[in-house]
Amino acid sequence: MLRIMLVVEYDGTDYVGWQRQKNGVSVQGKIEDAIFSLTGERVSLVGSGRTDSGVSALSQVAHFDTESTIPPEKLYRALNVKLPPDIRITASSLASFDFHARFSAKRKTYAYRMYARETDSPLLRRFAVRVDDDVNVEGMNEAAKRFIGTFDFRCFLATNSSVKDTTRTIYESAVTRENGLIVFRITGNGFLYNMVRIMAGTLLSVGYGKFSPEEVSEIIKTGVRKRAGKTMPPNGLILEKVEYEPQNT
Amino acid sequence: MLRIMLVVEYDGTDYVGWQRQKNGVSVQGKIEDAIFSLTGERVSLVGSGRTDSGVSALSQVAHFDTESTIPPEKLYRALNVKLPPDIRITASSLASFDFHARFSAKRKTYAYRMYARETDSPLLRRFAVRVDDDVNVEGMNEAAKRFIGTFDFRCFLATNSSVKDTTRTIYESAVTRENGLIVFRITGNGFLYNMVRIMAGTLLSVGYGKFSPEEVSEIIKTGVRKRAGKTMPPNGLILEKVEYEPQNT
Repeated sequence: MLRIMLVVEYDGTDYVGWQRQKNGVSVQGKIEDAIFSLTGERVSLVGSGRTDSGVSALSQVAHFDTESTIPPEKLYRALNVKLPPDIRITASSLASFDFHARFSAKRKTYAYRMYARETDSPLLRRFAVRVDDDVNVEGMNEAAKRFIGTFDFRCFLATNSSVKDTTRTIYESAVTRENGLIVFRITGNGFLYNMVRIMAGTLLSVGYGKFSPEEVSEIIKTGVRKRAGKTMPPNGLILEKVEYEPQNT
Repeated sequence: MLRIMLVVEYDGTDYVGWQRQKNGVSVQGKIEDAIFSLTGERVSLVGSGRTDSGVSALSQVAHFDTESTIPPEKLYRALNVKLPPDIRITASSLASFDFHARFSAKRKTYAYRMYARETDSPLLRRFAVRVDDDVNVEGMNEAAKRFIGTFDFRCFLATNSSVKDTTRTIYESAVTRENGLIVFRITGNGFLYNMVRIMAGTLLSVGYGKFSPEEVSEIIKTGVRKRAGKTMPPNGLILEKVEYEPQNT
């Protein structure tokens, strides 16, 4: 038995999300099918976390256990032949049995991408969300800095979530202009359900002058979901990176 | 009767191309349907030129004549409501009857976008083509400069074309690195069928060290299609801009 780690890039637009579901096609399900087609094994693929329908990933990480004798570092090529073009395994490697894609993850980085234009853009729409012209990007960046630290982030938690521990640590958080896009990029030890999308909506309220950057710290203190901004659409969100401790294999 | 000019952005991935065809869905057909749905008129929409299946546009230009009394500069919003999300009219305006989207076009700019990676990228694949690592971008740029001028470009013409006059003038041509992509951008007074895609294939041969930049000038002189590089896939190609003389309206 071997434990294999996969790095996965996908366009989530046409999927129900990362996680297998009763109805609809999931990214996890597609990769599990590809593994079955290659090895004849029905494995359970464990991702670093779920991504919602419409959310994409540049570097999602996942693991599974296999009896296959295909060299781990060559597995990704064989799997890619079985996958649709909107999912690609960009790397595969042998992992130790201590490694767990979800529980071993130390840091995750998400980007929320926006573009300021009057009309929706067919060329950008899969990985970015349109916002109104003349948003105050400097103000948004100032507000984003206020996420950095260890806080109870329950004000950014989707109301239908039943999670108990809502404290997370944010290491980096900034809003920058990149190639014509406005990008909110955030790195933390973990994220609550819809947390980045609600943070993006809160920053956009700052960008539109509805909140001041200072108010963002107050909103976090109140812990009240209704005080924060709206949940932004999924297509602006990209899981960019998942980081782990160096492995002792 | 009014003549209306439209500026159109589209993701060509899922269309048979710009031009209406007996089988399959075209961008032109979709916009004509939207105009019919809005005005009740079956118009013939004239584009600046055709784009092939899989080719996209940031700023295609088109015109049509209408009896509609909708203010021309507001028309684009009403049309966008009727269009699928991979087609958007970004501007509409009144044009003079001297204006013709195809015959009045003075300059067109295309970009051919590539990325150097080992695996295909789900996030880039709709508007860029994967090439092998370590292509010589400086050599490609040197070769691209050799397209500038007025030449008989028949060596870059698809073999199934019956066009007579194969002389065109290229004003600008360069290969640059942009945001992790390798971009071949070319501006000319017009382009032959498949010309930019064959030019891109020829530049890639330079990038791989198969041709020297100097040989590109020789290939143009021979006029022999087989001497040039391969026709690159359509998804790397984007019509970026169509320019016209200032109108006297």
